[in-house]
Amino acid sequence: MLTSDKTGYIIKSMKAEIIGIGTELLLGDVVNSNAAYLSQKLAGLGIDVYYHSTVGDNPTRLASSVKTALSRSDLVITTGGLGPTVDDITAQTLQPYTKKNTLILKNNVGTAPGLFTKLPDKKFLIALPGPPRELKPMFEKYAIPLLKKVSGAKSIIKSRVIKITGLSEPKVNKKVKSILKLKPPVTVGIYVKLGEVKLKITAKAASEKNALKLIAPVEKDIKKRLGDYIFGIDDQTLEGAVGELLARHKKTLAVAESCTGGLIANRITDVPGSSRYFKMGIVAYDNGIKTKFLLDVGGEQCSPLQKYGAVSRQVAIKMAQGIRKLANSDIGLSTTGIAGPAGKTKTKPVGLVFIALSTPKQTICKKYHFAGARTSVKYRTSQAALDLLRKSVQGNA
Amino acid sequence: MLTSDKTGYIIKSMKAEIIGIGTELLLGDVVNSNAAYLSQKLAGLGIDVYYHSTVGDNPTRLASSVKTALSRSDLVITTGGLGPTVDDITAQTLQPYTKKNTLILKNNVGTAPGLFTKLPDKKFLIALPGPPRELKPMFEKYAIPLLKKVSGAKSIIKSRVIKITGLSEPKVNKKVKSILKLKPPVTVGIYVKLGEVKLKITAKAASEKNALKLIAPVEKDIKKRLGDYIFGIDDQTLEGAVGELLARHKKTLAVAESCTGGLIANRITDVPGSSRYFKMGIVAYDNGIKTKFLLDVGGEQCSPLQKYGAVSRQVAIKMAQGIRKLANSDIGLSTTGIAGPAGKTKTKPVGLVFIALSTPKQTICKKYHFAGARTSVKYRTSQAALDLLRKSVQGNA
Repeated sequence: MLTSDKTGYIIKSMKAEIIGIGTELLLGDVVNSNAAYLSQKLAGLGIDVYYHSTVGDNPTRLASSVKTALSRSDLVITTGGLGPTVDDITAQTLQPYTKKNTLILKNNVGTAPGLFTKLPDKKFLIALPGPPRELKPMFEKYAIPLLKKVSGAKSIIKSRVIKITGLSEPKVNKKVKSILKLKPPVTVGIYVKLGEVKLKITAKAASEKNALKLIAPVEKDIKKRLGDYIFGIDDQTLEGAVGELLARHKKTLAVAESCTGGLIANRITDVPGSSRYFKMGIVAYDNGIKTKFLLDVGGEQCSPLQKYGAVSRQVAIKMAQGIRKLANSDIGLSTTGIAGPAGKTKTKPVGLVFIALSTPKQTICKKYHFAGARTSVKYRTSQAALDLLRKSVQGNA
Repeated sequence: MLTSDKTGYIIKSMKAEIIGIGTELLLGDVVNSNAAYLSQKLAGLGIDVYYHSTVGDNPTRLASSVKTALSRSDLVITTGGLGPTVDDITAQTLQPYTKKNTLILKNNVGTAPGLFTKLPDKKFLIALPGPPRELKPMFEKYAIPLLKKVSGAKSIIKSRVIKITGLSEPKVNKKVKSILKLKPPVTVGIYVKLGEVKLKITAKAASEKNALKLIAPVEKDIKKRLGDYIFGIDDQTLEGAVGELLARHKKTLAVAESCTGGLIANRITDVPGSSRYFKMGIVAYDNGIKTKFLLDVGGEQCSPLQKYGAVSRQVAIKMAQGIRKLANSDIGLSTTGIAGPAGKTKTKPVGLVFIALSTPKQTICKKYHFAGARTSVKYRTSQAALDLLRKSVQGNA
């Protein structure tokens, strides 16, 4: 690909191609995540990936695929088939290429080493093992330094991911419509996952510093348009962002979960160091348990459960207040809802959820209606609850 | 591929190839899970997949890839690039092929329809949309019935997955070594994921009935060799298997989690109908909370926490007994351990975990040492705890 860098010079990037090897891939027993991983890494090195392909454990078809790949690309990376069993045909099939100018790449995790071969016409062939936990350290430790030397890349690619929750993809799209139309050297893509929208800013430039200069104004513009809907950058998770805020503000948390069934506590405790701010969780799946531990706290004799039903604003509020008192924490967070598929009534459909948050100063409760199957409703509820918590600690709830 | 069916006839299977289209795949922003999904479905139809490939949103390279694919395969399926934006180049690029003998495949979920084209020489071209939630229903509802008519497959492939926990992959391998060497028409593959080993039995036969006949004796043999290490078949999960057992034996459960932080309660409540047997969970992340709710139950004045530390056999046992009494359930299950990365001491390394289970008849406690990062330790602990519970309800713990 010919691109122009900031200085106006024309740069020729290395063209790469990735070949996955293994009948288990062609049977669909294993998803080829190596191709995505290597593509991301190569993009970061300024190497353009033009093709992925997958072949089975068949020497003839592998040889033909490698030949085609080398005819049209500067760098060919194979993954898989390097082990010691009869199925593992890669080393033997590549032998006509690898018998000279080949470096062995050490495997610090498994047994099969990798290969890095310099071919005529400034072409390169790399063979990596299939298991991701072997491939990744080998590629990062041994192949990347070699590729940096030989790629001659005059440009690199740098990305930054802006993470958003509480706003649907069409609504995010509408707010950043003009930004999504940006053309190289800086572009923005939109990606969706359950309860989350991501905007990925990608810049191609002569150096990381220049790439970051291109990214900064776009990021600023996105932040201006989306404000508090943004909860994190790059690898930051919502539970991680919430944890940082709780630790920074020295606030402790306890959660009382009904429909989320422990998912919120689980996500919070996925974060290393969460014991600093997380005191306890109660999963009150049984109405008797809700009453005994959460609704009768403080000696009140009311029974919101009987009066309004377990899935109600009143019960959510009592649960949040109850868990806060029970755990003696700064914040109490609660969820109650109908995750489905059973449990709906005439007035309370599957997906109806109440989330409440209690602090010494205030108690708030929000009503939601989430779409999807049981685990989707659970996840969307946990996402909304953590986001309510995030905004509360920030002072914006 | 030429194979012989039970009647001795020689069958020629249809050869297929899948082309993924989209620059997001080549950048590694999206993992190509469609190729694995379609491969599994095609295998089930008796259609052999020989190649996967991926190209960007580039008409020249797409046209060239389709031409190559059609020259060597009977069936070519493209995924992606069918939408209305400028990036979506598939419909236009395929036009030379699709201008006649083409059926439109309806998209009941999104906007872009699919295409099913009959080409000369008994070749076929199918274009499907990229988003899995659009691709899957379209393929299953419209493409599979058409493929069944035209594939002429005289054989089908049927698989059955045997799921194992509590035994490492090398140990499973050793127990079924001879079975893993089986040759077609029935073969067995071994797959590993965190805390679980899977054996997949695959049979190729003239009918599903015949395939099941080939699978049955192999399954019986595997069950004989692995016995109670097997927790489920096909899509069954460990939490689902445990749930069925609890419901069948009419037992109720409560869990007290420290190092798993709510993961066990979350997995249990992922199962629809779990409110029948799951009463409550407590996530006691704070030592004060452990003492207040679980260790002082019954008026005892002992303090195993101060004497032995939170991560100890004594505390695990007290937690299991405590939660059972607190929730008035038939079974109490507890975990305490060091998930890491912090928290280790000289005598208590990261990964040290105690799991206890209490019933009116007995209390048992097991000690484990799990490898891996924080979330791996959490998951492995939840897997071992659910498995201990499974064996206890079955009467084998």
